[in-house]
Amino acid sequence: MSVHLVGAGPGDPGLITARGLELVRRCDALVYDRLVSAELVAEAPADALRVPRERFEQPELSALLVSLGKRGLEVVRLKGGDPYIFGRGGEEALALARAGIPFSVVPGVSSLAAVPASAGIPITHRGVSSQVTLVSGHDPAALDFDWLARARGTLVFLMGLAGLPAIASGLIGAGMEADTPAAVVSQGTTAEEARATAPLSQIAEQASALLPPALVVVGDVVSLAEILGRADVHAGCEALAR
Amino acid sequence: MSVHLVGAGPGDPGLITARGLELVRRCDALVYDRLVSAELVAEAPADALRVPRERFEQPELSALLVSLGKRGLEVVRLKGGDPYIFGRGGEEALALARAGIPFSVVPGVSSLAAVPASAGIPITHRGVSSQVTLVSGHDPAALDFDWLARARGTLVFLMGLAGLPAIASGLIGAGMEADTPAAVVSQGTTAEEARATAPLSQIAEQASALLPPALVVVGDVVSLAEILGRADVHAGCEALAR
Repeated sequence: MSVHLVGAGPGDPGLITARGLELVRRCDALVYDRLVSAELVAEAPADALRVPRERFEQPELSALLVSLGKRGLEVVRLKGGDPYIFGRGGEEALALARAGIPFSVVPGVSSLAAVPASAGIPITHRGVSSQVTLVSGHDPAALDFDWLARARGTLVFLMGLAGLPAIASGLIGAGMEADTPAAVVSQGTTAEEARATAPLSQIAEQASALLPPALVVVGDVVSLAEILGRADVHAGCEALAR
Repeated sequence: MSVHLVGAGPGDPGLITARGLELVRRCDALVYDRLVSAELVAEAPADALRVPRERFEQPELSALLVSLGKRGLEVVRLKGGDPYIFGRGGEEALALARAGIPFSVVPGVSSLAAVPASAGIPITHRGVSSQVTLVSGHDPAALDFDWLARARGTLVFLMGLAGLPAIASGLIGAGMEADTPAAVVSQGTTAEEARATAPLSQIAEQASALLPPALVVVGDVVSLAEILGRADVHAGCEALAR
């Protein structure tokens, strides 16, 4: 009897881990995020309790997991991406630990590299970038653009679509080259994936029609998509859904 | 007929993706890294060609993948972690693209968050860190310590064990607090996992007996392991191997 904080991966249901899928298939209760694919929710046993996460605020949700755990159920908390990369898994884990409920963390494929990969962008590449900084872009006013603009490697912003004009102008204002390659990948690894690629100074305009969730990549690695993202050579992740 | 660059995950064989495992189970040829678990190599069909990667230098290896792809085989190139996070997957993908061989990238669970998770450390945590910088630590002399020391969030060094004394003193010399929490996790997510936790000024000494591969985490999130890493509440990833 345990609560398992399981990463579902970036969208494509085939990108859950083998262990995560096994836990979903034999759980008593499944508490799942909105962005988790319906195919994965359907993998839970027919008689499992299914609870969509969005019905709850975070403190209520943590309390629910404690309560289900106390009842002795096998509980899977299925989260988009990885539980510990902007997944608020730490908050749920703390609530469980403080209540004395045994739990495990089953990591997931983060969108960090998987979504750029689906667009043909390796976030590190020998001779181009040996460093990646991952930032939440949901509040551009909170970002230290002077520091970010000095990064030698790749910048990845999660939740950065709404704030993209402020992010791009913040970086350029802090000294980053206006022609630094940039890309936005919307709904990466799913059948709805859409992309925009442009110099940093134009990326906000180019990406204005894209929908969230989206990931923003800034750095020279984006240029590799010209070769690696071509449909004739790159099958893409979207083609890999089971 | 295609070459699939597949991430095997951080060590625990249960952390490969469902799609990756499916591809391994029906491949004609498996080219695998030294750090990929024997359990995963054993999942390939009995008559599949098995090629350990370490027999080859990188250019030879890329040429081998092209050659196998040209023969019309289903080829799985199984790599530790994620192909595009310090996995040199981009180099292999470029070789395949330039030779006109269709390929796909199947992302994997990176050690970036999975290995700290196994030690009870969430690399992001609300109110503690909303930013992660991932750096290769294999050549500390190449690092910009002035920049790294100013990071507001978590620092993660891959391949940083040998250079840990230089990394710690470089960060402190550039102004990072000597008592910043730090951890080293060796062979994370496997049965051989071992850890050291200490203030930055003492981490190199505390970790001196650990073996590579190891990951170094620096930042306030490390303190969460005091609660989240306790064996009575956290089943850990090592217990999750199939």
